[in-house]
Amino acid sequence: MIGKLRVVNSLTREKEVFEPLNPPHVGMYVCGPTVYSDVHLGNVRTFMSFDVIYRYLQFLGYKVRYVRNITDVGHLSDTGEDKISKKAKLESLEPMEIVQKYTNDFHQVMHTFNLLPPDIEPTATGHLMEQMEMIQELVDNGYAYESNGSVYFDINQFSDKFEYGKLSGRKTEDMLNQTRELDGGSDKRNPLDFALWKKAAPEHIMRWNTKWSDGFPGWHLECSVMSTKYLGEEFDIHGGGMDLKFPHHECEIAQNAGSKGKDGAKYWMHTNMLTVNGTKMSKSLGNSFLPHQLISGDHELLERGFSPMTIRFFMLQSHYASTLDFSNEALNAAQKGYMKLANGLRLIKSYEYPAGGQEDINQKQADQINKICDNCHHAMNDDFNTALAIGHLFNLVKKVNSIQAGQLKLEEIGQETFDRMKTTFISFAEDILGLRLESEISSQNLLDVILEEYKSAKEAKNYDKVDELRAKLKSEGVIVKDMKTGIDWAFEES
Amino acid sequence: MIGKLRVVNSLTREKEVFEPLNPPHVGMYVCGPTVYSDVHLGNVRTFMSFDVIYRYLQFLGYKVRYVRNITDVGHLSDTGEDKISKKAKLESLEPMEIVQKYTNDFHQVMHTFNLLPPDIEPTATGHLMEQMEMIQELVDNGYAYESNGSVYFDINQFSDKFEYGKLSGRKTEDMLNQTRELDGGSDKRNPLDFALWKKAAPEHIMRWNTKWSDGFPGWHLECSVMSTKYLGEEFDIHGGGMDLKFPHHECEIAQNAGSKGKDGAKYWMHTNMLTVNGTKMSKSLGNSFLPHQLISGDHELLERGFSPMTIRFFMLQSHYASTLDFSNEALNAAQKGYMKLANGLRLIKSYEYPAGGQEDINQKQADQINKICDNCHHAMNDDFNTALAIGHLFNLVKKVNSIQAGQLKLEEIGQETFDRMKTTFISFAEDILGLRLESEISSQNLLDVILEEYKSAKEAKNYDKVDELRAKLKSEGVIVKDMKTGIDWAFEES
Repeated sequence: MIGKLRVVNSLTREKEVFEPLNPPHVGMYVCGPTVYSDVHLGNVRTFMSFDVIYRYLQFLGYKVRYVRNITDVGHLSDTGEDKISKKAKLESLEPMEIVQKYTNDFHQVMHTFNLLPPDIEPTATGHLMEQMEMIQELVDNGYAYESNGSVYFDINQFSDKFEYGKLSGRKTEDMLNQTRELDGGSDKRNPLDFALWKKAAPEHIMRWNTKWSDGFPGWHLECSVMSTKYLGEEFDIHGGGMDLKFPHHECEIAQNAGSKGKDGAKYWMHTNMLTVNGTKMSKSLGNSFLPHQLISGDHELLERGFSPMTIRFFMLQSHYASTLDFSNEALNAAQKGYMKLANGLRLIKSYEYPAGGQEDINQKQADQINKICDNCHHAMNDDFNTALAIGHLFNLVKKVNSIQAGQLKLEEIGQETFDRMKTTFISFAEDILGLRLESEISSQNLLDVILEEYKSAKEAKNYDKVDELRAKLKSEGVIVKDMKTGIDWAFEES
Repeated sequence: MIGKLRVVNSLTREKEVFEPLNPPHVGMYVCGPTVYSDVHLGNVRTFMSFDVIYRYLQFLGYKVRYVRNITDVGHLSDTGEDKISKKAKLESLEPMEIVQKYTNDFHQVMHTFNLLPPDIEPTATGHLMEQMEMIQELVDNGYAYESNGSVYFDINQFSDKFEYGKLSGRKTEDMLNQTRELDGGSDKRNPLDFALWKKAAPEHIMRWNTKWSDGFPGWHLECSVMSTKYLGEEFDIHGGGMDLKFPHHECEIAQNAGSKGKDGAKYWMHTNMLTVNGTKMSKSLGNSFLPHQLISGDHELLERGFSPMTIRFFMLQSHYASTLDFSNEALNAAQKGYMKLANGLRLIKSYEYPAGGQEDINQKQADQINKICDNCHHAMNDDFNTALAIGHLFNLVKKVNSIQAGQLKLEEIGQETFDRMKTTFISFAEDILGLRLESEISSQNLLDVILEEYKSAKEAKNYDKVDELRAKLKSEGVIVKDMKTGIDWAFEES
């Protein structure tokens, strides 16, 4: 390991040396998607950022347990309806069909962008009994109360002993001033109180029978329950999008402290927002595109589509804590950049140090290469700065291009430096940044090119060439067919 | 629809006309995998069979809700340990990490063999509260009793009113004679009683706190709970491997009848077992290979590997209710057969009826083709007989080959029959049997062939050819590079 890993902790607002609670183990929890509609690009960026963090921590030798949940019940819309139940009614489906459809789609998108699956992907409905238990603990500890069949977290009681708002830096007085007054019919004691359990309205589809009511859990609860169940009452990293800092993560801390007396995560990490041509990306502004639209180019703001690896490269060209701006220019530039990197990667993978080659070290070149390799590590150690790391990889591409052009000989670099260069390039590009060589070359089109060559050779009565091409294609499982109607082909039937 | 669909019902042992309870809706439940190890080939065959059944029911116009569960807790091994907990201890992982790993692998295998995902894929741990409720119903109805913190289904009480064993055709007296005596320490009243809830031993990892004990649910319970939750107390089809008929499905029927007064499924369907060279496939005989071994060929009984679509084709060449025998000869034959079918499929997809073509009907040919199309439907209507359907598709391949050879003209078939032939071929091969054209042709190897042509052309100073090949490759995103060191290529950087 070169130097120490430092991370910016949202809780302390400091860049801190990363010191896991129980090395070499690292526990990381990231808030996953609510599966009632297509995953949006902001989520993709968040999960991709933590994918790289997961990969780099493993690269550093940590044994990481990465938990990312699926919210399949309880995420309330502005009108207080459960988003999944609402969608189920709209689409006339059983809520779990909605959940399955969008979970499958979500996994497909994660796969398309080459994200590793988390070690555990728990669901809210899979942890109802554990949620009941945490609610009971909070009631027993005096931090929650039942009201008309619902159970609420009690901010007043909690604030006597703990600080509500410390992650987002908010004061309860300010929050109260910004909140509408409770109307007479509210079940809450304080407008800031949030639901742990909601009694279901008669038309509500997803419901479970408990001692409090026939109802469903509040959204914030599941993350406290599942993070502590799988990572312990104290664990290392909790991540999510910046928009979850308040109220979701603030409520998680309150639930953890109120039930277990401990805050949960040591390091909180938040990814920043997306913009489009400098304006915040949002559905209501009509400037929000979905992952599949970015790939196909099927959106009025997009000039063309981009490959999944180009998009991955594009996203990682910004640090996770910076806003990420989409524009056709930036995407086109990323496409060029990614292809350049991919060409370098393909080349260095093809190079082998010459066996028995006599070293003739050019110390300046070797030093430069070693320095670039160091810089790749330093960049990632600096709060997982993928943007910087990619910049350093481009410096390696320059060296690779010099080798290809014959301007720099492997013997001048020497075996040791060459091995390090090759390992560093491949590790950072593929293992850590998760980029992979895409073969976008259509075998069907290439086959057509060869069949035309075959046809020309036949017309020119160049039968050696005809036989040669026929044999080469046969070794690829393709049989050339000389039909009355012209040249055709078939898969070899054996 | 041509004729009526008939299915062999394991419950009545009759081939019956399929009449859904609530058309056009069809509810189908299939017992899914226990995710503590690699999915075995027998499971793949079962799920593939029901995948085709699902596809054909949809083809017939039914709106199918297909539920296939994931058993992630409670499947006991012979020694009474939970299989997932046991594996977790062996691999020193949290049980849910085991569950996640093998669930991901399972999904990958399903995807490889082109199985459609079910509409709902519920988990046992996701339905603990519902399981508690069914246990309570059974206790309340007098068909279950608590004993030392565990709850058992009461076969004696149940048998007073219902028939235990009607699916498998067993008599309780015979079963009792085949069962070891209860030892003094048993919690059961009757050796045939089965666990609904098990009190966890101190070392048991997966456990939930209930009024009966800190424990976990019995394996049979989840399927009764999840099938009725998502499909209703009565639903159409329940499927699974033949080995599940007893005790698993028998226990399901007992649980359903005991709690709801209804048996659950109307049609029970069971897939048959696998054999290898005529001998039952089993781990203990060492003749069992995993899906990935069948693909790679990495097993001492296999001469070589086979593509996923060859394997799918091979499996569907037997009717689901017949045993399926693996041998190198049979797999090699399937490989040839699949390629033949794939060539026919590729050809017919490329044919268009000539615009303004003058029909010159050869009635005998047209009648033959229409008859073959009818036969495809009849085969699937006869208890989903994929083996027969594939045979009829080969008759269509013969017609396609006659067309390719110029022996049969499209105008002789006529537009209407041609359209039917094309639609039937594509629907049965792709939509119903779920076969898809595999492109196994390596674009890298084809590119190498073209680069050699380029090199020859350059050496021969045939610059027209050089420019032509360079331009063709550029349109595929490949830039040819004439380096000092030889001919190389790069992805176009734009």
